[in-house]
Amino acid sequence: MIPALDTRLAPEEAAPSTRCRILQTAERFFREIGYQKTTVADIAKTLRMSPANVYRFFESKKAINEAVVGRLIAEAEARITVIADRPGLGAAERLRDIVTVMHRDALERCETHPRMHEMIEAAMSESWDVCRVHVDRITNVLSRVVAEGVARGEFAPQDPDVAGRCIHTAILRFCHPLLILKCPEDLAPELDAMIAFILAALRAPRVV
Amino acid sequence: MIPALDTRLAPEEAAPSTRCRILQTAERFFREIGYQKTTVADIAKTLRMSPANVYRFFESKKAINEAVVGRLIAEAEARITVIADRPGLGAAERLRDIVTVMHRDALERCETHPRMHEMIEAAMSESWDVCRVHVDRITNVLSRVVAEGVARGEFAPQDPDVAGRCIHTAILRFCHPLLILKCPEDLAPELDAMIAFILAALRAPRVV
Repeated sequence: MIPALDTRLAPEEAAPSTRCRILQTAERFFREIGYQKTTVADIAKTLRMSPANVYRFFESKKAINEAVVGRLIAEAEARITVIADRPGLGAAERLRDIVTVMHRDALERCETHPRMHEMIEAAMSESWDVCRVHVDRITNVLSRVVAEGVARGEFAPQDPDVAGRCIHTAILRFCHPLLILKCPEDLAPELDAMIAFILAALRAPRVV
Repeated sequence: MIPALDTRLAPEEAAPSTRCRILQTAERFFREIGYQKTTVADIAKTLRMSPANVYRFFESKKAINEAVVGRLIAEAEARITVIADRPGLGAAERLRDIVTVMHRDALERCETHPRMHEMIEAAMSESWDVCRVHVDRITNVLSRVVAEGVARGEFAPQDPDVAGRCIHTAILRFCHPLLILKCPEDLAPELDAMIAFILAALRAPRVV
């Protein structure tokens, strides 16, 4: 009985960890040699697996990329959610910290792994739904802090969802890997000036 | 004497129009088959010239692209300068019109010529100085209108140069060909909401 039980359980038990190893290896390849040049065979070889075995977990390189990008998104979201939930800080301070962290993270990633933009571009053109989830989740965190700021009287009455979208759009230059990698920094305003501009917009009464 | 004179004058007199024809032809190729696939030989052949003759006017495909992009920039600048100088309108109204026109033009170009992003990407990676000129000129027009708004008491006292950069950065999503082509529109705020957000920022007193 025991071997039979083992055999039934093994694939399921092993699955999360094999899945994880595939993602870790893929992410390293995508960062180091770039998404375009990485093949499923490379990933399989590094893990001493057959490509067919990799395909048991992910049906394509695109599906692997979606999971890798999904993990990065979850990390980014977790990082800013911690700031959004930090007690004892005003909404403006928390927004400032969130935007600063988003910029610093994006910059660090782009500097350490300049080929990373390939996996982001691939996700943007092949898997827009994954990107949509990212934009939605980050925007929701921003909107939530705006709503709290409005409730506390720090910000003027306004639609927090619209404000969240406007903030996310306004900081694209500082957080989007494509723009960070492709536009030299010299022409953008300082991040602090941009944050001050955004906070001014949030504080100002809407003109109807 | 006459033939000798002709020979001396001809290249100079002919130069502007040949230059122009090269640029027009190149722009059509860049828009229609894309920057990557266009060769100087294609351009020369269409104009019934030798490639060597094209090289008398432009030393490389990169130099041709710089001139083509430069022309597009001059057109865009001219279009928004007319609005900036329009008499009888408040600064807020002029900014609204400028941003709306910039967005509409960018959208139109991207929709009509989806391969156009190649020449923009080439300019961004090979000829950043050309892009810098563009960003600088557009930002200057925005800053000028902000300065007028501050002088008229429409906007709060602030540094118009910083405000111009912040506005240009905030509208990148609506005017940058790469973002227009690569991000579906569904997640951005409406352009009008973004303009209202920007105008709120300009009206609000700065918090020190």
